[in-house]
Amino acid sequence: MFQQISIIGFGLIGSSIARGIKKHELSHKIICVDQNEEVNSTVLALDLADETTPHLSEGVKASDLIIICTPVGAMGKVAEKISPFLEEGAIVTDVGSVKMSVIKALQPRLPACVHFVPGHPIAGTEFSGPENGFAELFENRWAVLTPQGHTELQAIERVTQFWEALGSNVEIMDPAHHDLVLGITSHLPHLIAYNIIGTASDLEDDIKSEVIKFSASGFRDFTRIASSDPVMWRDVFLHNKDAVLDVLQRFSEDLSALQKAIRRENGDYLHEVFEKTRNIRQEIIDAGQADYIYPEDKRGIVSTKVKSED
Amino acid sequence: MFQQISIIGFGLIGSSIARGIKKHELSHKIICVDQNEEVNSTVLALDLADETTPHLSEGVKASDLIIICTPVGAMGKVAEKISPFLEEGAIVTDVGSVKMSVIKALQPRLPACVHFVPGHPIAGTEFSGPENGFAELFENRWAVLTPQGHTELQAIERVTQFWEALGSNVEIMDPAHHDLVLGITSHLPHLIAYNIIGTASDLEDDIKSEVIKFSASGFRDFTRIASSDPVMWRDVFLHNKDAVLDVLQRFSEDLSALQKAIRRENGDYLHEVFEKTRNIRQEIIDAGQADYIYPEDKRGIVSTKVKSED
Repeated sequence: MFQQISIIGFGLIGSSIARGIKKHELSHKIICVDQNEEVNSTVLALDLADETTPHLSEGVKASDLIIICTPVGAMGKVAEKISPFLEEGAIVTDVGSVKMSVIKALQPRLPACVHFVPGHPIAGTEFSGPENGFAELFENRWAVLTPQGHTELQAIERVTQFWEALGSNVEIMDPAHHDLVLGITSHLPHLIAYNIIGTASDLEDDIKSEVIKFSASGFRDFTRIASSDPVMWRDVFLHNKDAVLDVLQRFSEDLSALQKAIRRENGDYLHEVFEKTRNIRQEIIDAGQADYIYPEDKRGIVSTKVKSED
Repeated sequence: MFQQISIIGFGLIGSSIARGIKKHELSHKIICVDQNEEVNSTVLALDLADETTPHLSEGVKASDLIIICTPVGAMGKVAEKISPFLEEGAIVTDVGSVKMSVIKALQPRLPACVHFVPGHPIAGTEFSGPENGFAELFENRWAVLTPQGHTELQAIERVTQFWEALGSNVEIMDPAHHDLVLGITSHLPHLIAYNIIGTASDLEDDIKSEVIKFSASGFRDFTRIASSDPVMWRDVFLHNKDAVLDVLQRFSEDLSALQKAIRRENGDYLHEVFEKTRNIRQEIIDAGQADYIYPEDKRGIVSTKVKSED
């Protein structure tokens, strides 16, 4: 499918893409470009790429596909540095969780002779680093592409085929709409999860140890996504500021209404809210996006792929 | 261990207790007392109890252990109705998620000749009803008892042995302290989960369908506990009002600080909060209370008992 693919930033996502490329034979050669020499050593030891380099200039030469997998805050600088070394006709794509700010940072810095197809595979786990990647991470998950009006159709088609080859379903979206939808489904839940764990962290030590002890009562459900990569998530919130603040405002208004209902002992209102949220779980299970619990197994054993988070 | 056990309110918890009693042979006879005749039919069809009745008066006669498994808001009335029919020396216990208000509602209504040992098994799933119970629900989970100073030690000991026979670890706690700790670990997370799903429910239809489509990006993690029983949870919030409002206040203050950091683009603050929350997940896994993900399995397959929620 490609002659040479450069993956810039070789963490969970970058290494999972590399494993997928190898598994499905999508490129003759894979170049790992990572500033962290420890990462490069791991990549060579695990045989995840054909070559590794810490130098962006070297890393993109002769590649016909360049995938930027760094935190979104670093992508502008990456574009600036690789720009003079890109092959004519090469395709540049990314995996950033935010699309408007990435387009704003990359588009003006890339030369006119390359094709830029912004992307976002909606897959991940709470684990970071190249050793935690796996080729199947993208299977049956969505990959969103947010090309602009002037993007060449053939380039969009090639990136689409690439993600489909990794097992994803591809969706073309407007970047601003992407940022709003992901603000609700991904960024707000992560912020809330980080916050509730943070609130618990600030408790006195004796209560904190009891929170851990009794975490199966609900708290635990929040800790998985709150153990996601801090740098990646810092960048997400800084770069999707407007959409996040908007949905956070709605969330806070709704929470105030619940708070008021508790204070005034308005049981009917509480029941009404709790009742309407039940159906959504089922809709998610029906859409094939949630853990399936085998109903015949009364112990509630779950066998599921934990593929989540941004 | 007991001659005859009455289980009042035969939902997920009640039916799981009954299955556990049968499995471990803890009583000669089990009486199911439920006002819903559909529930009673299911119980007989599934052979979960020896007898069923919708009448509280009949249901507790000759029983030496009575376990109240109704929503906490109904417990006061239950106590009032069973009171004249209780055997001298019988033990009354409950499984309510709130302890202060249950003690306040039950203690004055029960006759002096019975022993009242308030309890709370910290186990559950998001499924309701007798058909969803299973005998192993309480294995390796905590059962909290909050006896008062005047409670006879022998009664506490018998209830302790009962929960231990079902596989639980028993912890004796002060009821007010229980309500605060569970307010943080259970009630607040449920409220937040209900709220975030509620916020999403209020979105325009086209965005809502996309939220479901892309729910694997974080949102999904909240939907499991937000599909818990609405009546049970309405009662929890009405009966643990003060503790819930207290922890909700702390949560809101912390969320405002994060909101401000996003607005002012204070990346250092965000990073600091996101970094400190990572460790708690590991502590929960170490405490045996979280899903264990086999590290050797790169697909992230989870084999775990989903035993959670109140």
